[in-house]
Amino acid sequence: MIIIMKVSATVEEINSIKARIEAQGLQTHISQGQERAIIGLIGDKTAITADNLLRLPGVERIMPVSRPFKLAGRDFHPEDTVIILNGHPIGGKQLTVMAGPCSVESREQMLTIARSVKAAGAHLLRGGAFKPRTSPYSFQGMGEAGLKILAEAREETGLAVVTEVMSPEDLPLIEKYADVLQIGARNTQNYALLKAVGRSHLPVLLKRGMMSTIEELLMSAEYILANGNSQVMLCERGIRTFETYTRNTLDINAVPVLKELTHLPVIVDPSHATGKWSLVKAAALAGVAAGADGLIIEVHHDPASAMSDGGQSLKPHRFAELMTQIGRVAVAVDRTV
Amino acid sequence: MIIIMKVSATVEEINSIKARIEAQGLQTHISQGQERAIIGLIGDKTAITADNLLRLPGVERIMPVSRPFKLAGRDFHPEDTVIILNGHPIGGKQLTVMAGPCSVESREQMLTIARSVKAAGAHLLRGGAFKPRTSPYSFQGMGEAGLKILAEAREETGLAVVTEVMSPEDLPLIEKYADVLQIGARNTQNYALLKAVGRSHLPVLLKRGMMSTIEELLMSAEYILANGNSQVMLCERGIRTFETYTRNTLDINAVPVLKELTHLPVIVDPSHATGKWSLVKAAALAGVAAGADGLIIEVHHDPASAMSDGGQSLKPHRFAELMTQIGRVAVAVDRTV
Amino acid sequence: MIIIMKVSATVEEINSIKARIEAQGLQTHISQGQERAIIGLIGDKTAITADNLLRLPGVERIMPVSRPFKLAGRDFHPEDTVIILNGHPIGGKQLTVMAGPCSVESREQMLTIARSVKAAGAHLLRGGAFKPRTSPYSFQGMGEAGLKILAEAREETGLAVVTEVMSPEDLPLIEKYADVLQIGARNTQNYALLKAVGRSHLPVLLKRGMMSTIEELLMSAEYILANGNSQVMLCERGIRTFETYTRNTLDINAVPVLKELTHLPVIVDPSHATGKWSLVKAAALAGVAAGADGLIIEVHHDPASAMSDGGQSLKPHRFAELMTQIGRVAVAVDRTV
Amino acid sequence: MIIIMKVSATVEEINSIKARIEAQGLQTHISQGQERAIIGLIGDKTAITADNLLRLPGVERIMPVSRPFKLAGRDFHPEDTVIILNGHPIGGKQLTVMAGPCSVESREQMLTIARSVKAAGAHLLRGGAFKPRTSPYSFQGMGEAGLKILAEAREETGLAVVTEVMSPEDLPLIEKYADVLQIGARNTQNYALLKAVGRSHLPVLLKRGMMSTIEELLMSAEYILANGNSQVMLCERGIRTFETYTRNTLDINAVPVLKELTHLPVIVDPSHATGKWSLVKAAALAGVAAGADGLIIEVHHDPASAMSDGGQSLKPHRFAELMTQIGRVAVAVDRTV
Repeated sequence: MIIIMKVSATVEEINSIKARIEAQGLQTHISQGQERAIIGLIGDKTAITADNLLRLPGVERIMPVSRPFKLAGRDFHPEDTVIILNGHPIGGKQLTVMAGPCSVESREQMLTIARSVKAAGAHLLRGGAFKPRTSPYSFQGMGEAGLKILAEAREETGLAVVTEVMSPEDLPLIEKYADVLQIGARNTQNYALLKAVGRSHLPVLLKRGMMSTIEELLMSAEYILANGNSQVMLCERGIRTFETYTRNTLDINAVPVLKELTHLPVIVDPSHATGKWSLVKAAALAGVAAGADGLIIEVHHDPASAMSDGGQSLKPHRFAELMTQIGRVAVAVDRTV
Repeated sequence: MIIIMKVSATVEEINSIKARIEAQGLQTHISQGQERAIIGLIGDKTAITADNLLRLPGVERIMPVSRPFKLAGRDFHPEDTVIILNGHPIGGKQLTVMAGPCSVESREQMLTIARSVKAAGAHLLRGGAFKPRTSPYSFQGMGEAGLKILAEAREETGLAVVTEVMSPEDLPLIEKYADVLQIGARNTQNYALLKAVGRSHLPVLLKRGMMSTIEELLMSAEYILANGNSQVMLCERGIRTFETYTRNTLDINAVPVLKELTHLPVIVDPSHATGKWSLVKAAALAGVAAGADGLIIEVHHDPASAMSDGGQSLKPHRFAELMTQIGRVAVAVDRTV
Repeated sequence: MIIIMKVSATVEEINSIKARIEAQGLQTHISQGQERAIIGLIGDKTAITADNLLRLPGVERIMPVSRPFKLAGRDFHPEDTVIILNGHPIGGKQLTVMAGPCSVESREQMLTIARSVKAAGAHLLRGGAFKPRTSPYSFQGMGEAGLKILAEAREETGLAVVTEVMSPEDLPLIEKYADVLQIGARNTQNYALLKAVGRSHLPVLLKRGMMSTIEELLMSAEYILANGNSQVMLCERGIRTFETYTRNTLDINAVPVLKELTHLPVIVDPSHATGKWSLVKAAALAGVAAGADGLIIEVHHDPASAMSDGGQSLKPHRFAELMTQIGRVAVAVDRTV
Repeated sequence: MIIIMKVSATVEEINSIKARIEAQGLQTHISQGQERAIIGLIGDKTAITADNLLRLPGVERIMPVSRPFKLAGRDFHPEDTVIILNGHPIGGKQLTVMAGPCSVESREQMLTIARSVKAAGAHLLRGGAFKPRTSPYSFQGMGEAGLKILAEAREETGLAVVTEVMSPEDLPLIEKYADVLQIGARNTQNYALLKAVGRSHLPVLLKRGMMSTIEELLMSAEYILANGNSQVMLCERGIRTFETYTRNTLDINAVPVLKELTHLPVIVDPSHATGKWSLVKAAALAGVAAGADGLIIEVHHDPASAMSDGGQSLKPHRFAELMTQIGRVAVAVDRTV
C-alpha cells in the first residue's frame, strides 16, 4: 500500500504518519519526489483500513499495491483449476457447454429440452426452480417440484444439473437435487449466500453481477474459496452500460483478463449477455474465440410460450447448429468440444 | 403494451399475432402507419410475457406502456406516505436525519457517537452489526453483541435505531433490537430478503443498488409492499458510473424523479454517494435542496481508527455544523428540521 | 411516433393534442386502453419535434417508432455495402486487416513497421500524423511531415493508408496523402467534421465514441452519407463503462447488432478496446468470430519506446502469429483473410 | 510515477528498468515489499510515456502520482479565478445565472425571451446559432443571422451573450458577436477547437462531455489555458450513465470535487442534466446548495413550439419563480444572486 502525500504536506505530517504505521508493526519506506512525498507500507496490512488513512493530515490519496484476491489469484496458484463433474473436466482443454431453459415449467417441457440439448452434445443441463424476477407479479419458479423434474431429467439423460440458489435457507433442499449451484447476477455480492455455498460440497457457478467489477467478482469467489469450497467457476454474463439496444453488454475483455488473473474456469453466458436470440450465436462464438472454458446457453422448444426469457432462448435446432459452429471455432483456437 | 412490427412484416404475420393475443382474452388495436404497423394490447397483460412476443414472426420491438409498480406508484396512491416512528413523521414537511457510525465497534464507540448525534439534532441512529464487506478478510460486524449495544444506545438517547439485515435467517434476531430494517445496496435485488422484510412489522429503508435503475428500485419496493409491509423508505446512495474520482455518483436527479413517481419517502445518503468526508456537506445540502425527505449520514468520533468507512465519516463537530446548514437550506425550500 | 397520455389525462387534453397534430398535416390514431390513452402519429414527422410534445397537457411520454437512420439502415438498403480500395473489397466475405503504429514517429519507424505488416498479410496501413491527446503536453503528431512518410510507405509497400483527420481545416491537406479518412472516437459527434468528410471523395472509417450508443453511431454515419459520401466503415473500438481494469470495454454485441441494422462494413479495433497488448489476440479473434468485416490493430517494432499507445501495440512477430490465428478463426466462420 | 513489479519479477528485471529510467535523466527509488518491488520515479517525467513502461519485462502496473493539470489545478494556483464580464464577476461570492433559449429561432422569439430573463434577474443571455444535432435532418441553427439577433438582444437588454462554437472555421465570425464562447459537450475533447479558443481573447464556457471524467474535463481546460486564454469556466451538464429515465445524470459530486481541484469557476446546467422541465428546479437548487458558482438554464416562451429542447425549457414565469428560489438557497449557503 502506498500513501501519496499532498504537495503541501509538512515534515511533521509525514513523520506522524510514519510513527502511526510503525506502531502497528509495519515498516515504512519514504520516497521524497520533486513535488511531494510518498510513503510505502511494508508488512502485514490486515490491521490497516486503507480508507481511514485518508483522514490523516497531509494525505492526498491511497494506492493499493497487492491484489486482494489471494486464493482466487494466480500469484500463489499459477496452474488452472479443473473441476471434474461426472468424469467431465471443466476448465481444461475441452470446452463445457451447459444448456437448457431459463425456468423449469413442467415435466414435459424440461424432458423435451433436456433430450434435445443432450442430443446436440451439451455437457450440463441448466434450469431454474427458484427464479429471481424483477417484478413480484412474475412467475417465481416451481420450487421443489421443479427440482424433482430436473433430477428426473438428469436420470434420463445423464446430464449433470446446474440450478440457481437464491437464499441460504433454500440450500439444503437444492443440494439434494443439484450437481452445480448457480449464484445469480443479482446475488454476486450477497455475502450471506456466498458463505453458505462456500460450506457446500457442490461446485458453484458464480455469475458476475451486472454491476460488479472484475476485481469484485474475484472477491466474491474469494468468499466461497475462503469458506472451504475450492470448486468455483466464474461466469461473464454481460454488464450494465449506457447501451440499451442489448439487454446487457458482454464484457468479452473480461475473458482474457480473468484467464490472466485467476486459475478458476471461465464460462460465458451469451443468452443474458445479449438478451436476444439472434445475437446469441455471435456472442457464443466470440466467447470461445476469446478463450472461455465453456458456455451456458438458454434453449427452449417453444420460446414464444416460455415463462421467462423466451426472447433470448434458442430453439433446439438452432442450438444444434450452434454446437457445430462452436466445434469449428474451438478447433481454430486449439480447443475441443 | 405495444408491438412494433418490422417494415417487412406481412398481413398474415399481423393477423397471426392478433389472433394469438386475442386467444388470451385481450383486445388488440392495430394502427397501420406509412412504414409499418403497430399493435396495441388492451386488457390484463399478466398472462403475457412481453419478451416472448419478440419471437413471433414480423415483430421488431415491444414497448411497455403502463408502469409496472402498482403499489409504489402515484397513479393509484397520489398522496405522500408518512411513516410515524416514535412520534417523528418520516415523509412530511419535516426532514428526517439519521446519523451514526458505519459499524458498531464497541459499547464506548457507539454510545459516544449516539450522544453526539442526538445532541446535534439527529432523529434516528444508524449503525451496522452485520456488515457486507467486499473482502472476506475484512471486519464482518459484531453480530448480536452489536445489536445489544445499539439497543442500549437507543435506551439512553431515545433515538430509534436503523440497522442492516443481510439475510432472511438473521431477520428474527434483528427484529428484536431494531426500529428500522435497512436493505443495503448489494441486496436491492435479493428477492428472498425483500420478501422476508415484506412480512415484517418494522419499517424498511431500501437502498438503491449501485446499478439499479429508478424503475428497478421501485420494483424492489413493490416486492416489500406486495408482501404486506407498507412502510418503505427509498434511499438514493449513489450509483456506479465511469467516474472514479468519487466512490459513487450521487444521482441527484433521482430525488425529484422519485418524488414524481412514488408516494414513498426519499432519503439521500451523502456519505456513500461521495465516499469522502470533505464532499459530504455539499452532497447533503444538495439532497435537501432537491427535495429529499431526509438524510442518512455517517459520523465517527475517531474516523482514522474506524473499522469501516472512516474516509467518508464526519467528525461530530462537523456533523453538528452540517445540521445547522441543513436547517438553513431546509428553510429556503420550505421544509423544517 | 406514439404519445402515451397520463392516467389522469382528460378527453379535452386528448382532443387538443389530436387537433394540434392534425393541424400540421399528420393523421392521428387514438387507442383507449384500460388505464390510459395512447395516440399514434401517422405521416411525415419532420415538422414535429418529439421532445416538445412532452410540454402538452396530459402527456406522459413519447415513444419513437421508426429508426432515424434512413441511409445507414437496412430497411431501405438491405444488401451489404462493399467498398473497393485498390482492388481489395471491404465488407464482403474476405476480411480486411488494417495495421500499423499509433503515430508516425519517423521515416525509419514507419517503413520498418509498414514492411512487417505487409509481410504478415495486412491490407491497409494505419498511422496517425495528427494525434488527439488528452494532455496538451503530449506528442501531438508530426503533421504534414508524417503524411509524407505515410505516402512513402504506401509507395514502397502498396498498402493503402488510413489516417486520422481532426479538423475540417486539415482535410484538404490530408486528402492529398490518405486513402481512407479516420474519424476518431472523440470526434464521433463533431458534426462540422462529419459534414466535411461527407463531402470528400475518400472512404471514411468512423470510430464509435467511447460513450456513443449504437444509434448515435449510425446517426453520425448518416451525417456523412447525407452529405454525399456513401463509403463509410463503422469501427467498434470499445466503450467506456464502470470497469477500469481494461482501458475500454469492447462491445462485442455491437458487431452482430450493427450487421442487423446497417449495410455498412463493421471493423473492430482490439487495441483501443483493451488497451493492453496481451489482451489484443483474444479481442481480435472474438471480433472475427462475432462477424466483423475487419480489424484495425496497432503494431510497433519497439513499443517500449513508442511515442503513444506502446502499451497496447503488438510487436511484428506477434502480429504475424495473430494473422495466422485470424485466418484459422475466419475459416471457422466461413470467411477468408 | 510508480512502477509496480510482478510478484515473479527478477532482480535483473528490476535493475534493467532502473538503468533504463536513469538513462533518461531521472532518479529511481526502489522499495522491496514482502511480495514484490515497487520503483518510484523522481524527476521530469515528460520524456517518459507511462503506458510504454508496461512493456518492460516484470512490470505489472503503472501508477501516476502527480496531477496532470498544472495550470487548471489548485496546487500552484490556490486562489479562485474570477472572470469579470461587463462588470459582473463570475466565480466570486455572487452567483451568475445565464438563461435563454436553446436555439435562436427568430428576432421576435429571441427578444421576447431576452427581455423576460433580464427582468427576472439573469446576468447573461444564452442562445445557439450553430447547433450540434444528433440527426442531420434536424434544425442546424440560423448561423450568422442568429448571431446578429443575439447582438441585437444584447444591445437592447445589456445582457452579455454566450453562444456555441462548433468548429475552428466559425470562430472569427462568432468572435465578432459573442461575449462568451461555449464549447459543447460533444466537443469537450475536440482538441483542434480547444486550441483555437485558447487563442481567443473571449472567456470560454467549457462543457463537460457526457463521457468525460473530471480529470479529462480539467485536461481539456488545460488545452485552453496552455494556449494562452486564462478565462475558462467549467460546466457540469450531466453525464451518461445506465439510468435512462432522465436524459443525463447530473453529477452533483463533481461540483465540490472541482472546487477542490481547480480555481476555475464551476457552472451547473440543470436543463441538459435532467432533460425535463419539471426536474430543472430541483437540479438548479441542488447545484447552488452544492457550491456551484453559477447556472445556465434554458428558457422559452413557447416551449411546445421550440425548434430544439422544448421539453427541458422553462417558461418565463417559472424561470422568474426559480430565480427567487435560487436567491433563497444562495443566502442559505452564504452566496448572493
